[in-house]
Amino acid sequence: MARTRHAIAVDVGGTGMKAALVSGTPDGVTPVEQRRRPTRPGGDAVVEDVVALVDELRAVAGPPVEAVGLVVPGIVDEAAGTGVYSANLGWRDHPFRAAVEAATGLPTAFGHDVRAGGLAELRLGSARDLTDAVIMPIGTGIAAALVLGGRVSPAPGEVGHVDVGHGDPCGCGQRGCVEARASSAAIARRYAERANRQVSGAAEVARLLGAGDPDAAVVWQEAVDALARGILLVAALLGPEAVVLGGGLALAGPLLTDPLGERLDELITFQRRPELRLAALGDEAGCLGAALLAIDMLEDR
Amino acid sequence: MARTRHAIAVDVGGTGMKAALVSGTPDGVTPVEQRRRPTRPGGDAVVEDVVALVDELRAVAGPPVEAVGLVVPGIVDEAAGTGVYSANLGWRDHPFRAAVEAATGLPTAFGHDVRAGGLAELRLGSARDLTDAVIMPIGTGIAAALVLGGRVSPAPGEVGHVDVGHGDPCGCGQRGCVEARASSAAIARRYAERANRQVSGAAEVARLLGAGDPDAAVVWQEAVDALARGILLVAALLGPEAVVLGGGLALAGPLLTDPLGERLDELITFQRRPELRLAALGDEAGCLGAALLAIDMLEDR
Repeated sequence: MARTRHAIAVDVGGTGMKAALVSGTPDGVTPVEQRRRPTRPGGDAVVEDVVALVDELRAVAGPPVEAVGLVVPGIVDEAAGTGVYSANLGWRDHPFRAAVEAATGLPTAFGHDVRAGGLAELRLGSARDLTDAVIMPIGTGIAAALVLGGRVSPAPGEVGHVDVGHGDPCGCGQRGCVEARASSAAIARRYAERANRQVSGAAEVARLLGAGDPDAAVVWQEAVDALARGILLVAALLGPEAVVLGGGLALAGPLLTDPLGERLDELITFQRRPELRLAALGDEAGCLGAALLAIDMLEDR
Repeated sequence: MARTRHAIAVDVGGTGMKAALVSGTPDGVTPVEQRRRPTRPGGDAVVEDVVALVDELRAVAGPPVEAVGLVVPGIVDEAAGTGVYSANLGWRDHPFRAAVEAATGLPTAFGHDVRAGGLAELRLGSARDLTDAVIMPIGTGIAAALVLGGRVSPAPGEVGHVDVGHGDPCGCGQRGCVEARASSAAIARRYAERANRQVSGAAEVARLLGAGDPDAAVVWQEAVDALARGILLVAALLGPEAVVLGGGLALAGPLLTDPLGERLDELITFQRRPELRLAALGDEAGCLGAALLAIDMLEDR
């Protein structure tokens, strides 16, 4: 049995950073103390804030901290330890792992936020019994962690940016992307445009849908159609047992999974029909995944 | 260093079966003697003909044969050793591995024709230096073997049946499939319809294209566009280093890869641009892959 490790996990998000002092093994992680703070853009600013969070959490009484786990968004080169590109946070080829190791003196595991969140759902959450799965957080954007043969693949998994044929432009420069209709941000924006009425977010559109609002019904169904077509592509290529839906939109629960399942049943022909599940770990998945990366690194030593 | 193994490899195709007595290791296979015969449909007929081929090749003088490697098309369950479904050859849940082992008394490795061909290109052909690649034979149909992290994935890889938006019906029951415009069969059929002139196959359309035929140019470019869009989807999800084009259509060489590369460059935004390569092993890939499956099985014992 693996011994209990002590690490600090940091999940750098587009707007906020989550950090936790954790104890755990590769199969179970307990947060001992947590911190949140807003994300300042720029690679140097992020490293500075990560180091400050690590120092703060190291000062908490307890066994010595053995490692840091750090995950960031964008394009990530896990092997090199670099953030290759983040449009939102403004970095290119930033050497996160080396910078955090130099400043803290702690071995640092470095990864991608969505893939780390997928690892957490695989080990600790809704995908525990699965070998081949797609773990798809839906929030401001849409991405996916691909679990293949029981492991989280380093593949990009950009299911939010495949063309599903609706023709609307996407922020990525393409047209027809799943994300342009089915992200929480797209649902809120498209409802506001159609109903000429501002909403606080996709959760409000879901409430309006439940109340029988016809504009909400159209926007929601178009989102469901785009998601179903994206999942169908993944099913043809990868044949996962299940798709685990996470992120803010998954809080809609059966309001999302029921029509999505129906649409998938209508569209599917030869593909294996993936089960639809809801993620279990909410917005803690990335931080728990960062903790697992740190613990796995210590176990491999 | 692995010792030299002696095996019989059989690749069951939609129209013909290829069999070979081989000597080799996991890194190199030499065919000693080869046989071809037409494929008779039906699981029982295929097993009968495979066993007859094995008996015939076992009678060739040489070291004792240690194993059989058998690959078939359709949906294959490698772990169970069954052919789950083949529309063309007319079987459902046929226990190929058990039947061939019982009739020959030889341990039998069983796999999927396209994935086995991908394994051969990975070990012996055009993908030898690659860790993440898509090996895509284009013939009567279009399929792909996905190489992920240096291994051929058991994933279905049905890149011929993803919707790329052209709206034409496909034999699979969907619309917009890559295969409906870009398979050799589709290119020949679409040229004949457009030019009101029969052709012997896609190779003749390629020749007409070279001779400046305007109908050939349109049909070819529509095939290239569908292929490029299919490759783009794979690039967004899996980010392969290269796509290795095989099958009959790849014999067109730069007539295929040049316009396909140009179209990819036009369409690509954030995705890693995969290199385009031509397969090295031609229609021997499946049989060589079957040989490798047999040799790998012997090495694992």
